[in-house]
Amino acid sequence: MTNPAPAGWLATLERRAQLRGRAGLTRVLRPRPADDNVTDLAGNDYLGLARHPKVTAAAAEALRGYGLGATGSRLVRGATDAHERIEDALAALAGADFALVYSSGYLANLGVIRALSRPGTLLVNDAHNHASLIDGCRLAGARTVTVDHADPDAVAAALAEAPGRPAIVITESVFSVDGDLAPLAELHAVARRHGALLLVDDAHALGVLGERGAGAVADAGLAGEPDVVITATLAKALGGAGGVVAGPTALRQHLLDTGRTFIYDTALPPAVAAGVHAALDIAAAGEPLRAELRDRALTATTRLRDAGLAVPTPAAGVLSVAAPDAVAAVAWAGACRDDGVAVGCFRPPSTPDNRSRLRLTINVGVPRADFEHALDVIVEHAP
Amino acid sequence: MTNPAPAGWLATLERRAQLRGRAGLTRVLRPRPADDNVTDLAGNDYLGLARHPKVTAAAAEALRGYGLGATGSRLVRGATDAHERIEDALAALAGADFALVYSSGYLANLGVIRALSRPGTLLVNDAHNHASLIDGCRLAGARTVTVDHADPDAVAAALAEAPGRPAIVITESVFSVDGDLAPLAELHAVARRHGALLLVDDAHALGVLGERGAGAVADAGLAGEPDVVITATLAKALGGAGGVVAGPTALRQHLLDTGRTFIYDTALPPAVAAGVHAALDIAAAGEPLRAELRDRALTATTRLRDAGLAVPTPAAGVLSVAAPDAVAAVAWAGACRDDGVAVGCFRPPSTPDNRSRLRLTINVGVPRADFEHALDVIVEHAP
Repeated sequence: MTNPAPAGWLATLERRAQLRGRAGLTRVLRPRPADDNVTDLAGNDYLGLARHPKVTAAAAEALRGYGLGATGSRLVRGATDAHERIEDALAALAGADFALVYSSGYLANLGVIRALSRPGTLLVNDAHNHASLIDGCRLAGARTVTVDHADPDAVAAALAEAPGRPAIVITESVFSVDGDLAPLAELHAVARRHGALLLVDDAHALGVLGERGAGAVADAGLAGEPDVVITATLAKALGGAGGVVAGPTALRQHLLDTGRTFIYDTALPPAVAAGVHAALDIAAAGEPLRAELRDRALTATTRLRDAGLAVPTPAAGVLSVAAPDAVAAVAWAGACRDDGVAVGCFRPPSTPDNRSRLRLTINVGVPRADFEHALDVIVEHAP
Repeated sequence: MTNPAPAGWLATLERRAQLRGRAGLTRVLRPRPADDNVTDLAGNDYLGLARHPKVTAAAAEALRGYGLGATGSRLVRGATDAHERIEDALAALAGADFALVYSSGYLANLGVIRALSRPGTLLVNDAHNHASLIDGCRLAGARTVTVDHADPDAVAAALAEAPGRPAIVITESVFSVDGDLAPLAELHAVARRHGALLLVDDAHALGVLGERGAGAVADAGLAGEPDVVITATLAKALGGAGGVVAGPTALRQHLLDTGRTFIYDTALPPAVAAGVHAALDIAAAGEPLRAELRDRALTATTRLRDAGLAVPTPAAGVLSVAAPDAVAAVAWAGACRDDGVAVGCFRPPSTPDNRSRLRLTINVGVPRADFEHALDVIVEHAP
């Protein structure tokens, strides 16, 4: 018998783990307690709403009403009026005809790309797109062309090579690792010219950019366009969990009838939907929060650049700070952690360019003095 | 220009929706209020724990401590001790070396199949497997052979055709539509003989089957085997949301380092993890709940068969009741709903055999008299 021994696969996994370890690519879970006294420059709670008393109170009240879980998929038993209310609010905020909530942003991206793709569809994927978008293209099984980052000409060239073919141009708005903003208006013009759809993952912009925090798509003047589909997460500026797809009316029924990650997945807990709704109301009225976020992003960029660090100009609340290599990035993040500052440490395969860096994220819920001290800590431990 | 008009894709979606409408395949969201006075035979809250006061109290307390969302992926900022505690409890219950929690069962299945697959891997997929397992095979990009349902000989034949090739045999334990149980011991013997892994989605059995509700894998004597990987959901008998992968130690680090749906997804809300933990404690001590569930499954099967309906013998809390066609199934479920009884209505593409049926699920949290009355209602409206 030439087959491996029953535990051979475990030995293979262990061998691969050792190789990753030598390259500084081992990942470690560090569970935090409820009150960890750490200054957060790592999470995505941009407006500090995850702990807002109105948000947790709304979730607690819904817990009493609905119980913990949704107890089923949206179409079987999991749809509640709490889901309907947050969907109406999300659609209104984003300026879309409808919004459908998923249990995660990952599943929203997988589901909508798959549902919109047919065997002949061309998917044009930005080189810096998030894993969930890349996996959406892969799961769709349609021809996918990955084009240079934030390059409308490259998108136009890819579309021109497949004239008459249904196509979807897929991009993030604010990119999750480098924090830059896609040229949305230009991408839409290119897509429109070629009869293609534009799909924008607005995860890091919803609540953060645009009037009332409507997101980058609205801020680019594209809200309600018939050839624009938005996805986003409820887990970042809105402080909760779950994902959303928003767009023109006809897409809604299509997702209800054919969207596998919507149909076959347990619904988001109603209490999370209710908490997110409270957060959305605060975010929509939260221009002072957004002004503070912009100010902190500028302060951080200036402080880090003054210290000689390479930081691209952030479009919203995400800052990328170059590190020499994976081992140095891990040591840097670890030294910050030891001094009470949580920062993101991004290494391959989590970086689009295969280079390691710290990723800093602004949380305006952090006291300003702690935030400024954290910048000193980061500079102090720079390699 | 031969390209479609900007809104051409909307017209296409509308045309396809009309075709589905004519075939009785339109799906409608019916949001329920917190207190809808409906008798639930549609959800997956098998032990009635979603509304258990200890469960909602544990979640509410964690809300106060951690806030609403996890604020980041597990590896960046989202890992809390609430996650660690539920993982330890899940591993202990299932008899596995470790458990890792995902934000949904769908993502757990996608992630583990992808992470375990390399280009040369053979995936052997049961014909009745859940969409998330099928999509996991598709996303993995490995060669997938779909074999006859619950047929160890078919699995053996598929493995024999690829000697020496790494392989994974993928099955549900209790199948989500028909409610039958896979022949797990036989499948494991076949997998072991060929050096293949056995991956079991225990979603509808965790909390329901086995001693202390340890699940069908444990009940089949396979807990802790080095060639068995378990996935499950925290959204059914455990009353919450989220998914889990459990198995031998070496798999844990592999998922932390390479599992895309673990790495790139916001963590489950800590409050949900805490609520699920409370539910797990109740479920583990809940032999009377499981006895009641078995009794109700038997009662329902007998009552429906006595009325001339075709019902396969349920292995746990899922009952499948044949309907003549999609239109009749929708009318039947609608008539039950009008009489205050929620039942699942499963039509293509949600059924493995392309036939429509009602899916009934047992919720022991429903008062016994209401449950028995609901059976009368279902029989009364049978087509």
